Amino acid sequence: ALCSFMSHFRHCWVCFATEQDDPGAEWLSPCRCRGSTKWVHLTCLQYWLDNRLRVSQQPIRCQLCEVAYSVIFPQMGPLVDFLRVVDRTLTAIGPFGTLGLLFGTAYWTALSYGAVTVVQVMGRANGMMAIRGARPVLLLSGLPAIPVLLILGKTVRWDDCVLKLWQKCCYEPKLPSGTCTPGICRSYLPPIPVDEPRGKRQFLTSRMLCGALLFPSIAVLTGRLLFPSVTSHLQRALLGGSAYVLLKGVLKVYFTKQLFIMHAGRRILNYGDVQRAERHRDGSSN
Amino acid sequence: ALCSFMSHFRHCWVCFATEQDDPGAEWLSPCRCRGSTKWVHLTCLQYWLDNRLRVSQQPIRCQLCEVAYSVIFPQMGPLVDFLRVVDRTLTAIGPFGTLGLLFGTAYWTALSYGAVTVVQVMGRANGMMAIRGARPVLLLSGLPAIPVLLILGKTVRWDDCVLKLWQKCCYEPKLPSGTCTPGICRSYLPPIPVDEPRGKRQFLTSRMLCGALLFPSIAVLTGRLLFPSVTSHLQRALLGGSAYVLLKGVLKVYFTKQLFIMHAGRRILNYGDVQRAERHRDGSSN
Repeated sequence: ALCSFMSHFRHCWVCFATEQDDPGAEWLSPCRCRGSTKWVHLTCLQYWLDNRLRVSQQPIRCQLCEVAYSVIFPQMGPLVDFLRVVDRTLTAIGPFGTLGLLFGTAYWTALSYGAVTVVQVMGRANGMMAIRGARPVLLLSGLPAIPVLLILGKTVRWDDCVLKLWQKCCYEPKLPSGTCTPGICRSYLPPIPVDEPRGKRQFLTSRMLCGALLFPSIAVLTGRLLFPSVTSHLQRALLGGSAYVLLKGVLKVYFTKQLFIMHAGRRILNYGDVQRAERHRDGSSN
Repeated sequence: ALCSFMSHFRHCWVCFATEQDDPGAEWLSPCRCRGSTKWVHLTCLQYWLDNRLRVSQQPIRCQLCEVAYSVIFPQMGPLVDFLRVVDRTLTAIGPFGTLGLLFGTAYWTALSYGAVTVVQVMGRANGMMAIRGARPVLLLSGLPAIPVLLILGKTVRWDDCVLKLWQKCCYEPKLPSGTCTPGICRSYLPPIPVDEPRGKRQFLTSRMLCGALLFPSIAVLTGRLLFPSVTSHLQRALLGGSAYVLLKGVLKVYFTKQLFIMHAGRRILNYGDVQRAERHRDGSSN
C-alpha cells in the first residue's frame, strides 16, 4: 500500500513536499535511485548542491546510487569566458607576487643597510665617493652582500674551537681513567655548558642576528674609543672591529671555561649530611 | 641473603659497579632511598644529571623518593658573575632586537615605496621638490602611510555592495514565492558565487596585496594612455587611477553578475533523458 502511495504521489527528498503541495514546481529524477529518493525539486536540488559539506568533489554524485549529476550551465558569451581566464590567472600568480614582494623588501633593506655601513665605516666623504664611483653591478650585488656576510661571519665560532682545544689539552689529561663498567665514573667529563635552558635556542639565534648587524656600529665606536689617533676612518673601524672581536672572544672563552670548571666541580651532598646540618641549625636557632 | 649482600657491598645505581670494582671512586647517598638505590658514584650521578630527558625541572629530585638533591657549585668570582648577568641580559633582549629589525625593515621599505610613489605620481621634478620641501615629521609618518592606505583602500569592496543591491532590486522580485514546506523550492536564490575553490582564500589575499601596491603604477600608465592631453602629472595620474578603478569595478560587477545568472540558471538533467541521449548517440555513431 505504501509503495503504491509512493508511486502515485511524487515527493521531494529535500523538502518532503508532494506534488499536491506545490503543483507548479519543477520535478527531477537526476539519478538511478527509485522509490522515496527518486524525485526532487529542481530548486531544492540546487539548494542542496550549494550547501554540500564537501565542495571539492568533482563531478557531483548522488550520495546513494553514486550516479554523477548532469549539470548544464548556460553559455554566457566570450567576454565572461575571457574575464574568467583573467581572474583565474591573476589569482594564480598572486602568491608569486607576494614572494617577490618579500624578496624585494629584504633586498632593498639589505642594499640600504650596506650603503649605510659603507658610509659609516669609511666616513661620510669617502663612503659617498666610493659608492658614486663604483659600477652599478658591483653596488647592486656588493651592498646587499654586506649584511649577509656579517651574519655568515657570526656562524664562524672560533671561540668554541679554542674552548674544545683547551678542554682536550689542559683538562682531560688531569682526569684519572675510570675503571667501572660503562667507563663513566671518575673519567666523566661534563659537556661544555650553555648558560641557558635548552628551549631558548631561538633566543640565541635572534641575539646572533642583532649582534651581526650591530657589529659595524660597534666597530666604529670601539675604534673611536681605543684608537683616536688613527685618522683614516676605514683603518680605525677595522682596528676597532678587530679589537672588539678579540676582546669579546677572550671574555667568552674565559667565561665558558669558568662555567665548565664550575659545572665539573659541583658537589652533591649526602642526604644524611644535609639532615644533620639542618638539625644542627635548628638546634642552634632554638 | 640478597639483602645482606646488598648492605655489605655498595653498588652504584647508574653503572652497577660495586665498591670492589673501583675502590678509589667517590660514593654518595644523595636522597632518602635505601637498599639497591641508596648508593651512587659522584661522577655517575653527574653524568645522569647532565643527560636527563626533562631538563626544565628545578630543583632536580630523585625519581623514586622525590628528595631534592643538594647540588653545590664552587664560587667563581665577581667577573664570572658579571659576565653571566651580561650574557643573560643579551639573550633576553635578543627577541626584541629581532622584532625591531623586522619592524625597521617594513618601515624602511614602506618609506621608500612612499617616496617612489610620490615621485612617480607627481612627476620627477615636482615630486622631489615636494619631498625636499616637506617637514621631516610629515615625511617620516606620511610616506610609510602611503602603502598602508593603498592596502586598506583595497578592503573597501564597493563592487560587492553594488552586486548585493542589484541582487535585491532586480533579481529577487522576479522569483515566484515558494509554497513547499521549508520554503526553499522555487524561491531559492543561490549565493553570489566566488569563481574559486574555497581553500584558495590566501591566494586572494596575496592577489589583493599585489594589486594594492601596483595601483600607483597602473594609475600613471592608464593616465598616460587615456588622458595624454593633461599636462600635470598629478592630475593625469588621479584621472587614470579613477578611470581604472571605475572600469575594473564595472567589469567585476558585470562578471560576477553573469556568474550569478549562470549559477542560478543551471539545469540538472533527468537521468532517464541522459540515458536516452546516450543510447541515441551510440545508435547513430554505429
